[in-house]
Amino acid sequence: MTAPRSAVAGELGTSKAAARIRAAAIEVFAAKGYGATTTREIAASLDLSPGAVYPHYKTKESLLYAISLEGHHAVLTAIRNSDRTDSPAGKRLTATVTAYVAWHARNHALARVVQYELRSLSDEHFGIIADLRRSTSKVFTRIIEAGAAAGDFHPIDTEAAALAITSLGVDVSRWFPSNAYSDPDVVAERYVELALRMVGSAS
Amino acid sequence: MTAPRSAVAGELGTSKAAARIRAAAIEVFAAKGYGATTTREIAASLDLSPGAVYPHYKTKESLLYAISLEGHHAVLTAIRNSDRTDSPAGKRLTATVTAYVAWHARNHALARVVQYELRSLSDEHFGIIADLRRSTSKVFTRIIEAGAAAGDFHPIDTEAAALAITSLGVDVSRWFPSNAYSDPDVVAERYVELALRMVGSAS
Repeated sequence: MTAPRSAVAGELGTSKAAARIRAAAIEVFAAKGYGATTTREIAASLDLSPGAVYPHYKTKESLLYAISLEGHHAVLTAIRNSDRTDSPAGKRLTATVTAYVAWHARNHALARVVQYELRSLSDEHFGIIADLRRSTSKVFTRIIEAGAAAGDFHPIDTEAAALAITSLGVDVSRWFPSNAYSDPDVVAERYVELALRMVGSAS
Repeated sequence: MTAPRSAVAGELGTSKAAARIRAAAIEVFAAKGYGATTTREIAASLDLSPGAVYPHYKTKESLLYAISLEGHHAVLTAIRNSDRTDSPAGKRLTATVTAYVAWHARNHALARVVQYELRSLSDEHFGIIADLRRSTSKVFTRIIEAGAAAGDFHPIDTEAAALAITSLGVDVSRWFPSNAYSDPDVVAERYVELALRMVGSAS
């Protein structure tokens, strides 16, 4: 289950100052890795004293959690908003894979932090983020199931296909941009074609 | 091009002591991330003084490079050894994807270090590793091209399919094992099915 919006906003820190700190932290975490970064460096990148971060984020972990919550909510919202549940499964998979892949390409620094630094979250925070990740995977699983039920898709293994689709999207944040692919829409288009094949789309 | 074997062995450090240091470093890098680890910690995990690491690896980067070279050589060797170039393309793709995916699952700690810490290599070392990565991708590209030429495969975009196959394999090291998948051979089998579909295999 996803957390209610109000709770999320409260935990994230709604002030402009908190948003600036998160944006700076994303850049430093993505460049150096979470473990190698101190809140002092994040503050310094904004010309702030370490004490100026403290009222917003008491610990480095709370900052990572706020970023992870924001990032995972954003990607789940992106795919849900792109999904028209009354459309044929092929169209639904096209729209959601496009949204998912393009999000990871466009937000590759943020995506790298939220996808690769999960092990540094507290157990409680990890559990909340894991729920959001399951909700994201379920969007793809349900579309594949709907397509199979309608005879539009012929998956060999629905769970494996959903895993591969999410895995491809996540991994975009590791390699994007490359010499061959620097346009998020082009990557999304290629990956939609591959996703439709993976689920055995008839069209 | 890949470096000659003798050069690789020389750079890696062939002694048992050097191998023990690399093995310890892989565990610490995989658990904490390269940036957050000191050579002092790696030495301490072996009950060695920091000075005992120095004769083998002068810097933390040289240790990462030795691990990266070893890991990338191992995966390239695994897929090349599994590839019978006189077999039909479907069999070749099955064998190489199996080797690639199973390697990333079995060696997920090593794979995570060599796939996710590339940015910490020196420019010169990165260049050498990038060549090895291109050689690995080329194995898949050539098999897809051979399959298309023989009429066995009908890829929409060979480059995108090869990218997706390598990307799926790399990402295994991020998530493996999961609740649903903890057997490297099962993951490999599912991913072979998906890879064959991605290239439009007729069989």
